[in-house]
Amino acid sequence: MTHRTIDLVADLGESFGDWSMGDDAALLEILSSANVACGFHAGDPRVMDRTVAECVRRGVAVGAHPAFPDLVGFGRRAMDLTGYEVRTDVVYQLGALRAVAAYHGAEVVHLAPHGRLGNLVATRQDYADAVVDAVRHVDPSLRILAQDGCLADAARADGIAVGIVGIVDRAYEDDGTLVPRSQPGAVLHDAGEIAERALRMVLEGVVISRAGTVVPVDCDSILLHGDSPEAVAVAQRIRAGFETNGIAIAAPGRRA
Amino acid sequence: MTHRTIDLVADLGESFGDWSMGDDAALLEILSSANVACGFHAGDPRVMDRTVAECVRRGVAVGAHPAFPDLVGFGRRAMDLTGYEVRTDVVYQLGALRAVAAYHGAEVVHLAPHGRLGNLVATRQDYADAVVDAVRHVDPSLRILAQDGCLADAARADGIAVGIVGIVDRAYEDDGTLVPRSQPGAVLHDAGEIAERALRMVLEGVVISRAGTVVPVDCDSILLHGDSPEAVAVAQRIRAGFETNGIAIAAPGRRA
Amino acid sequence: MTHRTIDLVADLGESFGDWSMGDDAALLEILSSANVACGFHAGDPRVMDRTVAECVRRGVAVGAHPAFPDLVGFGRRAMDLTGYEVRTDVVYQLGALRAVAAYHGAEVVHLAPHGRLGNLVATRQDYADAVVDAVRHVDPSLRILAQDGCLADAARADGIAVGIVGIVDRAYEDDGTLVPRSQPGAVLHDAGEIAERALRMVLEGVVISRAGTVVPVDCDSILLHGDSPEAVAVAQRIRAGFETNGIAIAAPGRRA
Amino acid sequence: MTHRTIDLVADLGESFGDWSMGDDAALLEILSSANVACGFHAGDPRVMDRTVAECVRRGVAVGAHPAFPDLVGFGRRAMDLTGYEVRTDVVYQLGALRAVAAYHGAEVVHLAPHGRLGNLVATRQDYADAVVDAVRHVDPSLRILAQDGCLADAARADGIAVGIVGIVDRAYEDDGTLVPRSQPGAVLHDAGEIAERALRMVLEGVVISRAGTVVPVDCDSILLHGDSPEAVAVAQRIRAGFETNGIAIAAPGRRA
Repeated sequence: MTHRTIDLVADLGESFGDWSMGDDAALLEILSSANVACGFHAGDPRVMDRTVAECVRRGVAVGAHPAFPDLVGFGRRAMDLTGYEVRTDVVYQLGALRAVAAYHGAEVVHLAPHGRLGNLVATRQDYADAVVDAVRHVDPSLRILAQDGCLADAARADGIAVGIVGIVDRAYEDDGTLVPRSQPGAVLHDAGEIAERALRMVLEGVVISRAGTVVPVDCDSILLHGDSPEAVAVAQRIRAGFETNGIAIAAPGRRA
Repeated sequence: MTHRTIDLVADLGESFGDWSMGDDAALLEILSSANVACGFHAGDPRVMDRTVAECVRRGVAVGAHPAFPDLVGFGRRAMDLTGYEVRTDVVYQLGALRAVAAYHGAEVVHLAPHGRLGNLVATRQDYADAVVDAVRHVDPSLRILAQDGCLADAARADGIAVGIVGIVDRAYEDDGTLVPRSQPGAVLHDAGEIAERALRMVLEGVVISRAGTVVPVDCDSILLHGDSPEAVAVAQRIRAGFETNGIAIAAPGRRA
Repeated sequence: MTHRTIDLVADLGESFGDWSMGDDAALLEILSSANVACGFHAGDPRVMDRTVAECVRRGVAVGAHPAFPDLVGFGRRAMDLTGYEVRTDVVYQLGALRAVAAYHGAEVVHLAPHGRLGNLVATRQDYADAVVDAVRHVDPSLRILAQDGCLADAARADGIAVGIVGIVDRAYEDDGTLVPRSQPGAVLHDAGEIAERALRMVLEGVVISRAGTVVPVDCDSILLHGDSPEAVAVAQRIRAGFETNGIAIAAPGRRA
Repeated sequence: MTHRTIDLVADLGESFGDWSMGDDAALLEILSSANVACGFHAGDPRVMDRTVAECVRRGVAVGAHPAFPDLVGFGRRAMDLTGYEVRTDVVYQLGALRAVAAYHGAEVVHLAPHGRLGNLVATRQDYADAVVDAVRHVDPSLRILAQDGCLADAARADGIAVGIVGIVDRAYEDDGTLVPRSQPGAVLHDAGEIAERALRMVLEGVVISRAGTVVPVDCDSILLHGDSPEAVAVAQRIRAGFETNGIAIAAPGRRA
């Protein structure tokens, strides 16, 4: 599938207390959407407040980025919770961010699970169902951002809008899955190469696997990783590539 | 001022994880409103979920009970925060509970600061303004429950509805202030005596001070303390006294 | 193996802040050793201080009870940590309790991992090695309390003393493993039956499986669960059975 | 008082989880002592482990830097605790760091309260007594680092060694107190000026007040602030100034 409009999203608001993370100010110039941390892996109430205020000022769409309750592990460590625990933790975090958004006259328009929770919802049906249950009851008009997998399927089955996230800085296998991080070459660092992949993903709906095969990939939003040293350079290069090719950058429902 | 309808409220949902506090099930049979802990001093997402579900099932009005971020101190220790810190902490906690309520098809209808924060908003203008700022932007239709003081004044000045809370298990001075807890006789324990004070407060708008003076007191809601051993017995006695005297027990806006 | 002296141990100090758990005062009359929570799943610094003070006053041996960093889950939820994370978390918790003990002129003499960490060290070699690594460097004279499994083996291989824990309120399979909690009859509740099993375990070194087979079991310490409603009654019955049969109750190294 | 040997100390190990703070590696090249965060305001068990390991490798003396339990506020917000709460919190944090040090074959040799707790122990007798009580019972051979005030006095009265900390990047009043941060010119930023003040403080035992008066000041350790942008440059300049003037930089008890 090709697009003339694409959503550019990154994780923001991942500072905590006196500790900073990422160059949110630079990314906010480039993005159309932000996954905003909700306090369980990062993002205290002040960080959330400032992040949402900046999103509103720049017209960047605000999304909730709920996580496992693991501040010291940044939500990256697997936890074996019940579906009930996942559902109630997601409701709590989503609600907190919705009130921050309401304070600034804005709305939370999407939700994307963070870190290890974000990985596990692709394969654990109970976690996926829990996230969908939370969204359906709190705000069924939210769009869920996810890779293909259990969460995307469960959301669609329940009539929740889904945005499939394209990962442009990772190597792919021929079957469309990501090369595991543990393998050499799994993560791409060259801004030019990443920008070109983003372009083909959007214009042609394909990515070239590490074996050289042309693999079809679906993609509604391009996900940028905000915490790498080259994050801003990559984001600028992708944006420039899109603009040169007449692709508008906008969150769904706010298309130019 | 006399009432023929009065609101009976207590702090609920103050368990945490595997730890229980209070006999919420028994109190829910008696109350018209509940101040529900929001996770900062007590009340994890599961406790909040179960508490709100029970409130909804029994028609008890749900209120937010935000606190200082001090789980180990149960929100009872003074913290010197900025107004910005108080405002953002209250927005966060209120939002979390609103989503829990939304999950159960209900709404948060009031807000009452907990513990030391609840004491300090009566005298610290910056804390009072911060709470009102949070409520006004997130949901100006919320009623704020407070004793007379800065918070009640700031809320009224901003057009926010205020419910003045009557304390029926504490001794009063002639000037209408509470006898400090550090003094002997400050806290009443006899259910019959407390129930009779509640009745006079509601029917006649007065309380007898410890010096024996008749002191006028305002009171829209009677606050019961849920964590004392005699809590349920006191609550039952108060309720019985009201029913005998034809006083309906109901949350504002849900009057019988 | 039969004993004329046995160690009776239970988890203590699992209150937190204003929340209480277990009847520690009653158990302290009965036990010879205590596994004291160290703040990660339960037990704040005041609870630790009071628990250790009481252990010292009654001559109960103090042991560390480190856990996953999961207060809201009471350390009962699996977390996928690295060995380095487990080792550093155990060092931290053990050190905190050692200082509390030092304050009261006492020493920590054993260590027993709590909850899910306690289960996983029996089968995850990396977790077992991490616990032994922590103990060896901080205080190699500590005894490690564990069921048979990776942790007991790793400790012995490193020259660390091991106390095998006998579980007397759980049903056994013929191969000496516990019947999973999910199956009916897995947990015993009858104080008389439990006390008799404790006696045979100590005197004869056997337990009767649920199929009726006599199964040999090793046992240096009898573990009582402190958080069940019948905990104190069971503990009293076991103690009485031991005394009637001339079995002394004492922690190793403090034998009567 | 003049010295030919002086202790250079800074706060280290104030990262947390995935969040970094300060350039510890550069400071470790310059310091003789480190105040190491203990987990309550910063410094999780991995950060503590790595920080102590580096201190050991470079011969930097390890000190405990206990704080109020306020991660999101970085221990900078006043909390109204009881002396018992302060004492038990300090015992816990000191113990945790002692075990980390023991793991690396080292010892904690001093203690310096952090942030707002560090300010309040100068004027609140109950807090000062609590800290001394903790130190005396856990390890009376520890040196307490403090500015003049209640803590230094209470420690001396109890026979605990005290190191008075010289603040070289702050303006002084004629009476030897610091100019409050809220006033212009309270904090010095020029590395050369700060290094010269450090030199006079050590060689002559004086500082020039903002009114131009020569004020006597006591000083056993020079405290560097590690979290300002110019921290490393200032530290290098001070060290160079000392070396040029034949002043050895060493922790007490480890003098060259």
